[in-house]
Amino acid sequence: MTIFSERVENEKLGLEKVGEVVRLLGWVQRRRDHGGLIFVDLRDRSGMVQVVFGPENMGEGFTLAESLRSEFVVSILGRVIARPQGMVNVNLASGGIEVIAESLEILNGSKNPPYYIVDQVDVDETVRLKYRYLDLRRPEMQNVFKIRHRVTQIMRNFFDSQGFYEIETPMLTKSSPEGARDYLVPSRVRPGEFYALPQSPQIYKQLLMVGGMEKYFQIVRCFRDEDLRADRQPEFTQLDVEMSFVEVEDILPMMERLMVQIFSETIGKKVEMPFPRLTYKEAMDRFGSDKPDTRFGMELIDVGDLVGKTGFKVFANAVANGGSVKCICAKGCSSLPRREIDELGKFVSTYRAKGLAWIVLGEEGIKSPIAKFFTELEMSALLERTRAETGDIVFFVADTYSIVSDALGHLRLELAKRLGLIPEDAMNFLWVTEFPLLEYDEEQQRHIAIHHPFTAPMDEDLPLLESEPLSVRAKAYDMVLNGTELGGGSIRIHKRGIQEKLFNLLGLSQEEAVDKFGYLLEAFEYGTPPHGGVAFGVDRMIMLLTGKDNIRDVIAFPKTQSASDLMAQAPSVVADKQLQELHIKTVKTV
Amino acid sequence: MTIFSERVENEKLGLEKVGEVVRLLGWVQRRRDHGGLIFVDLRDRSGMVQVVFGPENMGEGFTLAESLRSEFVVSILGRVIARPQGMVNVNLASGGIEVIAESLEILNGSKNPPYYIVDQVDVDETVRLKYRYLDLRRPEMQNVFKIRHRVTQIMRNFFDSQGFYEIETPMLTKSSPEGARDYLVPSRVRPGEFYALPQSPQIYKQLLMVGGMEKYFQIVRCFRDEDLRADRQPEFTQLDVEMSFVEVEDILPMMERLMVQIFSETIGKKVEMPFPRLTYKEAMDRFGSDKPDTRFGMELIDVGDLVGKTGFKVFANAVANGGSVKCICAKGCSSLPRREIDELGKFVSTYRAKGLAWIVLGEEGIKSPIAKFFTELEMSALLERTRAETGDIVFFVADTYSIVSDALGHLRLELAKRLGLIPEDAMNFLWVTEFPLLEYDEEQQRHIAIHHPFTAPMDEDLPLLESEPLSVRAKAYDMVLNGTELGGGSIRIHKRGIQEKLFNLLGLSQEEAVDKFGYLLEAFEYGTPPHGGVAFGVDRMIMLLTGKDNIRDVIAFPKTQSASDLMAQAPSVVADKQLQELHIKTVKTV
Repeated sequence: MTIFSERVENEKLGLEKVGEVVRLLGWVQRRRDHGGLIFVDLRDRSGMVQVVFGPENMGEGFTLAESLRSEFVVSILGRVIARPQGMVNVNLASGGIEVIAESLEILNGSKNPPYYIVDQVDVDETVRLKYRYLDLRRPEMQNVFKIRHRVTQIMRNFFDSQGFYEIETPMLTKSSPEGARDYLVPSRVRPGEFYALPQSPQIYKQLLMVGGMEKYFQIVRCFRDEDLRADRQPEFTQLDVEMSFVEVEDILPMMERLMVQIFSETIGKKVEMPFPRLTYKEAMDRFGSDKPDTRFGMELIDVGDLVGKTGFKVFANAVANGGSVKCICAKGCSSLPRREIDELGKFVSTYRAKGLAWIVLGEEGIKSPIAKFFTELEMSALLERTRAETGDIVFFVADTYSIVSDALGHLRLELAKRLGLIPEDAMNFLWVTEFPLLEYDEEQQRHIAIHHPFTAPMDEDLPLLESEPLSVRAKAYDMVLNGTELGGGSIRIHKRGIQEKLFNLLGLSQEEAVDKFGYLLEAFEYGTPPHGGVAFGVDRMIMLLTGKDNIRDVIAFPKTQSASDLMAQAPSVVADKQLQELHIKTVKTV
Repeated sequence: MTIFSERVENEKLGLEKVGEVVRLLGWVQRRRDHGGLIFVDLRDRSGMVQVVFGPENMGEGFTLAESLRSEFVVSILGRVIARPQGMVNVNLASGGIEVIAESLEILNGSKNPPYYIVDQVDVDETVRLKYRYLDLRRPEMQNVFKIRHRVTQIMRNFFDSQGFYEIETPMLTKSSPEGARDYLVPSRVRPGEFYALPQSPQIYKQLLMVGGMEKYFQIVRCFRDEDLRADRQPEFTQLDVEMSFVEVEDILPMMERLMVQIFSETIGKKVEMPFPRLTYKEAMDRFGSDKPDTRFGMELIDVGDLVGKTGFKVFANAVANGGSVKCICAKGCSSLPRREIDELGKFVSTYRAKGLAWIVLGEEGIKSPIAKFFTELEMSALLERTRAETGDIVFFVADTYSIVSDALGHLRLELAKRLGLIPEDAMNFLWVTEFPLLEYDEEQQRHIAIHHPFTAPMDEDLPLLESEPLSVRAKAYDMVLNGTELGGGSIRIHKRGIQEKLFNLLGLSQEEAVDKFGYLLEAFEYGTPPHGGVAFGVDRMIMLLTGKDNIRDVIAFPKTQSASDLMAQAPSVVADKQLQELHIKTVKTV
């Protein structure tokens, strides 16, 4: 019999085990000496238990017990006893019992760790990343990976039960940078040529639909060589789904059912179906965002029609120039100090708003630098529209529709945070639909695809594709949870002619289109079924489920914001011979 | 209601559906016109069904039906009827019924495909790879990916039920080429530095054990930049498993249970447990191979003790020089023509054997060029040992143990194939254990690890580590099925001292060891539990389950033997700007 097969995990230790002799395996969390006895908190993946070593039960082995230190790995045989009434530790699942050790084997020793293996650890992240193998021992990290495993299992069993096949797509693919920068891999066999690591399996999954696989999914690693923000990693994990013969209505309810199951089975959260849906236009109009947080109100209110003719030129001009004037009403904020209001003005300027106008409805009446520009009638119309009451402030931004939305959308979130309006345990799922197909990129002087170049236009907007491309809506959808985009997708183009038109609108010449995507265009000519799908960010979903605000906390071996692995020390310099074989050399940059 | 939600898959169509109107979706396999009607074999992922279009039921839509061609994608509403008695197609699951179409929508057309989408396709593999999306439509390919999905689902649910967590390890790792060549990825952020794509997650999974994860598994992509044989791909998929606190006895039965489940649930094959075990020495002695095919006998027989003193110098010298003389007895082959025997001599010479001696036991007595060197007594001792009877041939090789084993081991397989000795439906699983830890590489003039440098020596052989390293056996094991290695693993070293000694034996200086593996050595000092695991080749397992003999047939988008993707045309030349950003340039080689 091996120690592993005898083993009882700490979480299994309770009053029903009292009297039994059990084999425990784990790490010494803490050792205390008291009254001639040695008390050890023994930690394993499942939890903690108190083990008591005494000379009486241990005999000669007691000397060995005296050598125990934090993070020693041990194998213990001991008898489970109930703790006396007053000694029960209610903070511990096994707190009703303790184990009286009868034998001890030290499986491995440990140097003093660079920091203590506890949850509320106050140590620089670079140290945690360097000693990642120690950091992973902390119970909260263990819980993250337990949940992460649970989530991917649920996903796989969900799609399996719906008749999907998980099919693996290549990691060594063709470079066709459309959005982000590719990671490249030099070819040894074909000098001067390179593979690219996939930014997503988009084209491959579409070709699986051409290949008659009908229902595909994959939990797959993707890569983007971009400068990293807090919630980005150079390699990340995506739940990737594609189906044939579907319309939007087939995909959305299915993904809702998946979310309901994940949230209920991992964190016990009940989520209601169906999820509310907002068109992109409605989301922008009401929340100034394509991923609105609907856990609180304070919606954007359009007052353009009320202020276009007023004496306040800033507002009147905005309307006259085809722009917008909108506001939000911050309830009960009338006592906000002037300094904070000025700060909010700076805040919205980071979103390109040129100013933030405001009306305070104090106990002593209206206070506002812009009040003087309005007639009494105009003012009362404004206040009626905003439903502002005594005690509120109304904030206004006047500019293009896009700047007004962006500035007020962010101001809304900022105020909600400051005012504590966000119910922390709410889970507000929703869909945003009918995204525009294209937007115009001023810098590149061309149209770019809002989702990606394979997204199908809405049928009723097809006639606008050439005359008014920016008005064309896409069969695209995003799932949003509490203001965070969880994932999104679309129905894809499945006809060569439309796909070519799209590439053309994106500024690709016919030659470039064929060079980059020729095999997809050709595939479209051989009986490609209508198809569509979604991609969800797994890392971000785990962050939301575990309440982490750093993506590095939900990845076992993450990279820093400069894309380094501090533990393994990657990237690193390699041997000249390796580069020669790959027909490349490094170039010194000044 | 969408067409997708109404849809009935072809496999669901049987006599119990007669009278119902069903929505069918799929591809036109074949269209025939007969007696004013149009007959279409409609193919979907699940199978085939016959659909009949007639002017009577279709009305004006009949004109549309007349435009149908192979590989058109269609949506059909039709009524299921029973076929008349004599018209039942027994080759088709739905052969008892046909569908009388009432309406037709062509979802997409198709050009004439470059080859027909049928199983017994006789077309060059380069064409199949270029049009991979068409090749995947063939029913046998669809079946491969159905089974492949089933296998990975079984694996995941198996390990989940045993308390394992699936944890993802990085794809952008540190280069430390020990065995094969690494694929490299230049870093943009750190000029002159490179990541490597993992050859396996070996070190990361060990660090997960240091990190207290206790039970880890992953189905993971791995990479090797080597010249490819028929059963290798530059990227391949591995079932990777690691556990803490285990011994060999904990791992082997677990993996057996997994195999029993996979073979039973995917191809309905009952596999007996426990699997036989052979030590490496026994496998080499009896079968001349560390992955013996035990579906037939013809084992190697040692006759060194009988021939060492005989007058046949070739044999006597081999024994005197510490080598071996062994033979196999090929039953009923006495009439093998001399030409074929000579061919077998050439065959063994490819395994470095200098000659193949033989004794034919024909009806007319013994025929053998070496018979004259033996006394009657010596000859009868030989024949007794080999249990040769009239009608057999005995083949001998004399050389070093290693050459004798290799040559006769391969001769044994070759003869079994020629003689049809291999029962095709047998599934002979076994374990080979107690591998040597090291072998000596003459070319590199140093020891190399037979499994990998992290494999633990057997406890009883530890004292030999310095004095006689080549005699040290490892806690390593391979699972073999019908002469193919399915996977293998080991208990790992978990103490820094032993790991350092191993690196040293492998010719790494202390500095090199720290440079390449310093983080692992350091980790070993902080309470590393005893641990071990396995890795199984998923692609190869699918090949065995589906009876394919080409690894490219079990990978959705495989690469050729020159590591090219003929469909996507990867690798390819990339933009100069991309290389500049990565601080590399390509080098022209002559």
